[in-house]
Amino acid sequence: MSGSCKQTIIFKNRPKVLGSYSLVGPKEGEGNFGKFFHEVLKDDLYGEKSYEKAEFKMMHHTIARAINDAGLKVDEISALFAGDLMNQIISSSFSARALQVPYFGLFGACSTMAESLILGACFVDGGFGEKVACATGSHFSSAEKQFRYPLELGTQRPPTSQWTVTGMGCTILGRKNAGIGIDCGTIGKVVDWDVSDVNNMGAAMAPAAAELLNAHFIETNRKPDYYDLILTGDLGKLGSEILIDLMEYKGYHLGNNYCDCGQMMFDNSQKTFMGGSGCGCGASILNSYVFGRMKNHEISKVLFIATGALMSTLSSQQGNSIPCIAHAVSFFSEKENENV
Amino acid sequence: MSGSCKQTIIFKNRPKVLGSYSLVGPKEGEGNFGKFFHEVLKDDLYGEKSYEKAEFKMMHHTIARAINDAGLKVDEISALFAGDLMNQIISSSFSARALQVPYFGLFGACSTMAESLILGACFVDGGFGEKVACATGSHFSSAEKQFRYPLELGTQRPPTSQWTVTGMGCTILGRKNAGIGIDCGTIGKVVDWDVSDVNNMGAAMAPAAAELLNAHFIETNRKPDYYDLILTGDLGKLGSEILIDLMEYKGYHLGNNYCDCGQMMFDNSQKTFMGGSGCGCGASILNSYVFGRMKNHEISKVLFIATGALMSTLSSQQGNSIPCIAHAVSFFSEKENENV
Repeated sequence: MSGSCKQTIIFKNRPKVLGSYSLVGPKEGEGNFGKFFHEVLKDDLYGEKSYEKAEFKMMHHTIARAINDAGLKVDEISALFAGDLMNQIISSSFSARALQVPYFGLFGACSTMAESLILGACFVDGGFGEKVACATGSHFSSAEKQFRYPLELGTQRPPTSQWTVTGMGCTILGRKNAGIGIDCGTIGKVVDWDVSDVNNMGAAMAPAAAELLNAHFIETNRKPDYYDLILTGDLGKLGSEILIDLMEYKGYHLGNNYCDCGQMMFDNSQKTFMGGSGCGCGASILNSYVFGRMKNHEISKVLFIATGALMSTLSSQQGNSIPCIAHAVSFFSEKENENV
Repeated sequence: MSGSCKQTIIFKNRPKVLGSYSLVGPKEGEGNFGKFFHEVLKDDLYGEKSYEKAEFKMMHHTIARAINDAGLKVDEISALFAGDLMNQIISSSFSARALQVPYFGLFGACSTMAESLILGACFVDGGFGEKVACATGSHFSSAEKQFRYPLELGTQRPPTSQWTVTGMGCTILGRKNAGIGIDCGTIGKVVDWDVSDVNNMGAAMAPAAAELLNAHFIETNRKPDYYDLILTGDLGKLGSEILIDLMEYKGYHLGNNYCDCGQMMFDNSQKTFMGGSGCGCGASILNSYVFGRMKNHEISKVLFIATGALMSTLSSQQGNSIPCIAHAVSFFSEKENENV
């Protein structure tokens, strides 16, 4: 790493994406990215008796299929880096139990896809393992039940609310000579602008994304137009507008190359208000649509920023504001005939 | 890493312990290790209005003091690796907010001290950062409230139960030429022997510790007597006896060099039944007593194994058994005049 870099890690060996997989629920399948996901469930209970068991089954299935997509066997995976939104990240831990691979449990709320990719890339880049799996995901019904109200109550949703995505994403990282790679990552600090409205996550998380992007651009000496695509995970419509404003204030113009997965996930007829949220939102789109466009050489430089709101129901009940974080991963794609 | 090693990482640059700190509650201060801890609270509310706020304040204080112990300023820390038992690890995230350092949130339940040390050691060893903080801790009252019953109920504790330690530990890792270092770490896989009694964590976690130790000894070609001290985090009296039996069955004799922090933390008059538990149990003893004895050259080779029970209240309510994990970190101490 560069000596002056406080938050950004440069990966000398530029870990490569060996495989990926995405799995989403029926509502997400009917949204704007339905045709890009690897698999769409017909029933978000996935044949299980509880939404939590469905969520675990979805994550296990997604990781197993991503390993398969990379042409690997499970016992070739050096480590699994995974986290989710459930208390004590049970979906990740139950997946690790089913897969029987060395496991690092993470919690970064909706920032987990980027957190797992940075730690996984460190692991591969530093030579601690050959191939790693980085995974996260969320389930609308289990998240509503845990963080807000029982679905059966039919509670009215406020206009700033977002819809937790039922979706999973997994990336397999390793070494090879071409394809999609990671050249650097920027690790977030916690940012808290005293927003305490848990129905306005976009506003709470946007300052964390802005601080992170600012650090990334300064430390890498890049500008927004360096990237073909700058993609936040789940700021939603309001949050991504706030981010654009905050970045203008910092002197960076986020143009047509900036998008937010939460804003894009659903179409307006699906009544999700500010759009999608949850760690599955960015994870499912990154591991399907984004990597797909990179493989087709339609885009080659992508900055993926996943933002997370790190409160618990209890911390909110005790009057705390929402601490937020964002991590960024910089992807590039190389054609087969290019040298590394 | 050695090609044949599936779970064990050898650290080429052998990250060093630059500083450490431990902070415990009044009951722990009256236990067997009271004189070794850096600081003992007189009141486990620590001047706050809730136990959760006390837990966060304890962790923040512990990390800040460990950074101070290393002779560093907060902005010299490249990354904080931290986790705790609270839903959405709020104690860690609120500490990261207060400290303003790049932050990786972890969840490994009571295995978190070892998980954070392995990831922190990878980060330093791979050259991704110069100095990192690895921290975890727990609080009896917040844990009881979240995982079991409100304290006000006065629920009778079963004889196999353990007492969640109110305690914190933080280790600062970096590079220097002598002192205490980490030469290798072994990453756990999830082990589940179908124990579902959340009042018998020792029995649930002991098989994970046994599988991990077995992998560690095979992959490092070491035997138990290689170490001056083999220390598990919080198996308690029953769990550590089960571990000794399981290891005998695997052909390894854990002798007088084996101890468990949970078993040792309290004296019998303190009525904790099977002893201490929680991620603060091993973390507080490692960062005080163990590093102290290593600095005094009374012992030089220590294997620290932290075990974690990865269930949530909800996973238990839905009839799942308890998935468990263990990670191990191998420490050594070098005298000032020895070469690395």
